Amino acid sequence: MANPNGRRRPGRPAGSSETKEKILLSARELFANNGFDRTSIRAVASAAGVDAALVHHYFGTKHQLFTAAIHIPIDPMDVLVPMRETPVDQLGRLLPTILLPLWDSELGAGLIATVRSLIAGSEVSLARSFLEEVITPEVGARVDTPPGTGTIRAQFVESQLMGVVMARYIVKVEPFASLPAEHIAVTIAPTLQRYLTGDLPDVLVP
Amino acid sequence: MANPNGRRRPGRPAGSSETKEKILLSARELFANNGFDRTSIRAVASAAGVDAALVHHYFGTKHQLFTAAIHIPIDPMDVLVPMRETPVDQLGRLLPTILLPLWDSELGAGLIATVRSLIAGSEVSLARSFLEEVITPEVGARVDTPPGTGTIRAQFVESQLMGVVMARYIVKVEPFASLPAEHIAVTIAPTLQRYLTGDLPDVLVP
Repeated sequence: MANPNGRRRPGRPAGSSETKEKILLSARELFANNGFDRTSIRAVASAAGVDAALVHHYFGTKHQLFTAAIHIPIDPMDVLVPMRETPVDQLGRLLPTILLPLWDSELGAGLIATVRSLIAGSEVSLARSFLEEVITPEVGARVDTPPGTGTIRAQFVESQLMGVVMARYIVKVEPFASLPAEHIAVTIAPTLQRYLTGDLPDVLVP
Repeated sequence: MANPNGRRRPGRPAGSSETKEKILLSARELFANNGFDRTSIRAVASAAGVDAALVHHYFGTKHQLFTAAIHIPIDPMDVLVPMRETPVDQLGRLLPTILLPLWDSELGAGLIATVRSLIAGSEVSLARSFLEEVITPEVGARVDTPPGTGTIRAQFVESQLMGVVMARYIVKVEPFASLPAEHIAVTIAPTLQRYLTGDLPDVLVP
């Protein structure tokens, strides 16, 4: 904060980048300790010593604050919004068709770096919160047929998608890692669709 | 090597544990730099300054040396031997039925720790070699129909299995992580079987 009168961007108060960092640090700590659902914007603001309105101003929704805090450079809404607008019987194809080009992109490289460091470190609980409290309920609510199966359907989908992340971007096993995104999408789509809306083994039906 | 006359185990030369460590260190370095296929027992022996026969004596086959070098506490033959004896149309069920109880076991905990540290570190190439040069050819040779598809069939199987490892043992997303092994095996079996012997998208057929 060299010059208290200098503004980095028009419309932003001086020292905004320090304040933002403080908010992100508080958010990261609270999300890691308490999970996504039990962390409020208000609690993050309070821990950072700022007003909740300022947190909203800088980061938008709690989803967006979460992705900023764990350094995911992609807004989950870029995936969740098209998902909500697609009939469930087409989601098996839609999900990898959106996700693979995203992961293959430059933004995706940042995402993969985040995944690697989350896996390696003690903050794997952040990845768990994200899957259990953001992704699973969102997907699960769409495919809860018969009732009580949505959660586990969503998590089998996550297992296949995480495996693609591992094989393609982290372990980089060839030729899998170099296949066109479209070839992977079209191959795993029937798997995802079966997990989403196909018959499940009896043992998984409550 | 405190006492050159003291033997730690009957039949083993004095100082064997230092020698074994030296061999493992050389093996790890050579496997990481050159991959599995291009690393010979002879080269490892030479780098460690010992006779190739001693490497065989301590570690058995090159597969066994590799798993010892990357601290995988499971002999791949425990999986590969039953696999070789099972008809391909039953492999989709066999693989998770063998692997999940293994991963769930105490030995598995060591394996998962290895996977995490390989992912995090600079030695992810060891995991890549293991998949590309040991697992993929072994599985791929069984399912190379139509010709030229075996490799990619095996790697789609690997992607689903790696995803289970991630979801269940590393991220530990619930309730997936707590499902009985059998429930996961029976749910992913049709996926694995489709990748192994089912119709592939035309784009994947040479």
